[in-house]
Amino acid sequence: MPEERFDSMAKSRRFPLRAGILGGGQLARMLALKGHEMGLEIHVLSPDSGDPAAQVVRHHHPGSPTDEKALRTFFKHVDLVTFESEFMDASALERLSDETRVPVRPRPSLMAMLQDRLTQKKWLQSQGLPTAAFRSITDAKQAESAFAAFKGRVVFKKRRFGYDGYGTYIARDETSLRVAIDAIESDRHGFIAEAFIPFRREVALMVARRPSGETVALPFVETFQENSRCLWVKGPIAGLRGGSRLTTRLKKGLESTDYEGILGVELFETPRGLLVNELAPRVHNSAHYSLEGLTEDQFTVHWKAVLDLPFSPVRPRAGGFAMYNLLGHHSRPPSWEFTADIHLHWYGKLENRPGRKMGHITATASSSGLALKRLVAARTRFDV
Amino acid sequence: MPEERFDSMAKSRRFPLRAGILGGGQLARMLALKGHEMGLEIHVLSPDSGDPAAQVVRHHHPGSPTDEKALRTFFKHVDLVTFESEFMDASALERLSDETRVPVRPRPSLMAMLQDRLTQKKWLQSQGLPTAAFRSITDAKQAESAFAAFKGRVVFKKRRFGYDGYGTYIARDETSLRVAIDAIESDRHGFIAEAFIPFRREVALMVARRPSGETVALPFVETFQENSRCLWVKGPIAGLRGGSRLTTRLKKGLESTDYEGILGVELFETPRGLLVNELAPRVHNSAHYSLEGLTEDQFTVHWKAVLDLPFSPVRPRAGGFAMYNLLGHHSRPPSWEFTADIHLHWYGKLENRPGRKMGHITATASSSGLALKRLVAARTRFDV
Repeated sequence: MPEERFDSMAKSRRFPLRAGILGGGQLARMLALKGHEMGLEIHVLSPDSGDPAAQVVRHHHPGSPTDEKALRTFFKHVDLVTFESEFMDASALERLSDETRVPVRPRPSLMAMLQDRLTQKKWLQSQGLPTAAFRSITDAKQAESAFAAFKGRVVFKKRRFGYDGYGTYIARDETSLRVAIDAIESDRHGFIAEAFIPFRREVALMVARRPSGETVALPFVETFQENSRCLWVKGPIAGLRGGSRLTTRLKKGLESTDYEGILGVELFETPRGLLVNELAPRVHNSAHYSLEGLTEDQFTVHWKAVLDLPFSPVRPRAGGFAMYNLLGHHSRPPSWEFTADIHLHWYGKLENRPGRKMGHITATASSSGLALKRLVAARTRFDV
Repeated sequence: MPEERFDSMAKSRRFPLRAGILGGGQLARMLALKGHEMGLEIHVLSPDSGDPAAQVVRHHHPGSPTDEKALRTFFKHVDLVTFESEFMDASALERLSDETRVPVRPRPSLMAMLQDRLTQKKWLQSQGLPTAAFRSITDAKQAESAFAAFKGRVVFKKRRFGYDGYGTYIARDETSLRVAIDAIESDRHGFIAEAFIPFRREVALMVARRPSGETVALPFVETFQENSRCLWVKGPIAGLRGGSRLTTRLKKGLESTDYEGILGVELFETPRGLLVNELAPRVHNSAHYSLEGLTEDQFTVHWKAVLDLPFSPVRPRAGGFAMYNLLGHHSRPPSWEFTADIHLHWYGKLENRPGRKMGHITATASSSGLALKRLVAARTRFDV
């Protein structure tokens, strides 16, 4: 029982509890800031002292979260481990957690299940959660057969380590099918093929569960992607058709897997209802709006979920809210102008790069449309 | 012009800007967390690595903010200096700021003026801001004469270094007058005598000004003190008689002194109107509610004020809000139970002590009374 040592501390509710985060990006940075607010002693394992999260903690441990030696040392300094990315060595984490009796939450076995798009899809299916039709693909023949079965519009995705469009190939004709097949044949991890979904809009929500069994859901929001990267989010979406049934099934899914932590859920809204596109066992870019937009933010919800603390009611703080990512457009040092009525989160990245997430801005207003409009106007004053 | 070096950076709006905080308590800690959110590189000068603010920053400089040598080293590492306490060596700060061209905001000369209750009172008077009748007191004779003039109900306060009731003597009879006179005769800093104010309630607000001249005021709130320590705060107070006139005068006062930063204002509400009791040139316990209660918190307002960034409109996020201080009642390690619907800020202090501010909780609700009620109930679950 790796939980034992931690749970006895958590039950006594004594500070400081030493909470470790694997990874040093902006998700880890915001987890660290909210953890500090709650009085946690935050430890970060990441390669560089200039990493966004490393900049805001006293206890930065230089090293890669994919290096077992670095992990082993890190586990000696903390009472609990969580992570900002699911692309880690789940079996190494499981082994270390067993050895050191330091729990990793969410559990490494669930990380392993979710980091593979095929096992993730099968899990969704087993929970009665609707997804696009999909198949496992390992060679050209299977790819061609999927192309025929899905009527010439197929999305091929690497089973593992894909993100922000990387590892995704859309085939809509012979040429693009050939490109996908080349990728499939040169990758040992395997692919899945999904029927291409002509969606109305993309939608997301977060759900969380703590060890005692309590669950909570954040509101449904609309997300807008440009070049496969999230550009903005607005919400809440009221009365989304099928939304409450889907939330109930997600919560049941968390329950049936003893899930401990927050889970990001990306969906397509289609004429035939909601389809789950992707899950991520961690805090998520689509819920950064929650820092100002909700009565409880996703980072606090995640800490409560892994520490087994009661959730607070999660309510919008205004009629509408929005979030806009500040993505790099060049490699010069970024500059900015504050404008009133927006809230800036800057990640402290030492280098600007095209497509890099440098920060985000949020706003609340009487409606989500108004909030987004304010951000679009403010965005022009940042030279990122 | 000590401002030059910093202003050229601030005008180019480039990160990271290295912001230094003198002091390592909970005010510095919350300043650091909000500074991190904005992308500032935060540096803290405080004696111990276990100090609340030292725990949440990468750049902790061990040393006392009252030690000129430690200050001198600290000034070399930062682009701007601010502070969590006005009880520092203002002339040393002024000298170092001139030497290093690193601005201190608010300015040391204003720190000096406000850290002395006599010069503070005179400044209030010069701005047309109402206060209790007061006199400067240096010996027994003046004390006795004030006692007679103020009809046997006098508050004697040390001119400098008083806080949380320390250095304050209420004389209402011969015995308590003798106690006060003993203190006056053994203290070289001098005292002031104030007419005792039979107030209805104590009230507070924050005002801030940035170098460009923009000012902002946070709402009026009611504060409740127990044993001269703030126990709770609730607000906003709507339609406080004389409130808007007083706010206007405070803003004019900031303007006329070129004030740069946030200013805490404590007041008495009396049958004859509002009287200013005390000013503090820094973030203030009475405005901790703002982290959840307002659209912009006092720490962000202070950073914007010292960095000369546009203020956002400051509006309550709900009908009412409240804050309750978690004051130590024993010296055992504290323990706690989270309850839903409150927000906990824990300062990470390594030792619990009677009267020590260990953390605070906040709530928002449809009214300030309801918010406070929730906190009073939650408080019982903390063993502090």
